[in-house]
Amino acid sequence: MKPVITAFEASPDGGQGLARDMRVRWALEEVGQSYDVRLLSFAAMKAPAHLRLHPFGQIPTYEEGDLQLFESGAIVLHIAQKHRGLLPTEENARARAIAWMFAALNSVEPPIFDHDIAMIIDQDKSWHHDRMVVVEGRIRDRLRVLSHHLGDADWLDGGFSAADLLMVTVLRMLHGTGLLDEFPFVARYVARGEARPAYLRAFDAQRAVFLASQRQK
Amino acid sequence: MKPVITAFEASPDGGQGLARDMRVRWALEEVGQSYDVRLLSFAAMKAPAHLRLHPFGQIPTYEEGDLQLFESGAIVLHIAQKHRGLLPTEENARARAIAWMFAALNSVEPPIFDHDIAMIIDQDKSWHHDRMVVVEGRIRDRLRVLSHHLGDADWLDGGFSAADLLMVTVLRMLHGTGLLDEFPFVARYVARGEARPAYLRAFDAQRAVFLASQRQK
Repeated sequence: MKPVITAFEASPDGGQGLARDMRVRWALEEVGQSYDVRLLSFAAMKAPAHLRLHPFGQIPTYEEGDLQLFESGAIVLHIAQKHRGLLPTEENARARAIAWMFAALNSVEPPIFDHDIAMIIDQDKSWHHDRMVVVEGRIRDRLRVLSHHLGDADWLDGGFSAADLLMVTVLRMLHGTGLLDEFPFVARYVARGEARPAYLRAFDAQRAVFLASQRQK
Repeated sequence: MKPVITAFEASPDGGQGLARDMRVRWALEEVGQSYDVRLLSFAAMKAPAHLRLHPFGQIPTYEEGDLQLFESGAIVLHIAQKHRGLLPTEENARARAIAWMFAALNSVEPPIFDHDIAMIIDQDKSWHHDRMVVVEGRIRDRLRVLSHHLGDADWLDGGFSAADLLMVTVLRMLHGTGLLDEFPFVARYVARGEARPAYLRAFDAQRAVFLASQRQK
């Protein structure tokens, strides 16, 4: 059964692969599962038909027969549990990889997402700079830990897993901020993720959607 | 095998059950699994022995034989997968419950945690009020969706699950802000969670630790 995911018709990131459908596309590419994409306008994301799939009116969603899922982390975990290749088979190693999935989304992403939000909605405020000092401090705290943990290891815990997939997509949001450059082990880790063939296929697929949306303007 | 978790020796929340060991205690109580607790000072949390268990130097951790886990969401998921009672057995319902676990931690908690942080570290800033308006707006967006989704249903998706456990612990952080009172369906949902016998046992256990720490002063 070919799953169907949703994605932005015209992604606000300009096709940089920062929208959360990238995580799901990458996971599906890693396990070799083909998929269809239903593109949504901003209006369609808030319409009743989509809110039945995603209560928060966002992308991505995942439909596979009777199953309907939202939350990119949950979708990636579902794909990783259903197919081989994204989680270790040994029970304890698998639980540890899932712990790192939660760490990516619950310990590392929140301050990084705050940085994004601050750049979007606070930029004209007189206190924007003060606020950024606080946010960047919290991000550096996380990057310092990741750098220490990774050292020159390729991945977070043994082989590449769904945890690395999520962590790399989270850390990529920092491109252009200079923060990754302060932590070379982390920067090289992100680059390793971005060099994977499955990543590149997913990146190209989402970029093609954005480029098509520009041509229609 | 009796698991061992870690918790604050003297929780900064004053025993209100807002520290993240509460989630793990509650899950263990729901499934009837007894556990031991190793209490940590702030200094011990940042010491090498603990950093080997939890790279970010926080609580809780979970040890069970050879398995060592961190991240409260991952620990609750591990407990829910190992025991009956915290996740539906039907496959699609189980995947949906896990989606709501991620929603609690990745879509609902971040703005609520920002509120906490803003109260702790930004309160003396001239822009504190401006910042709170932004944060509270983001929280209300989430509560509006939850209220609409819940209506007068008891739980997020059918019977009580690990998703409700996480969501209630996240929403409880809003006690005292007045925000829950604006959404009566959500407020009643939180109260339902807090009335569960397993919740009360977990709450009393963490509170006893805090009270003991006060007596030793």
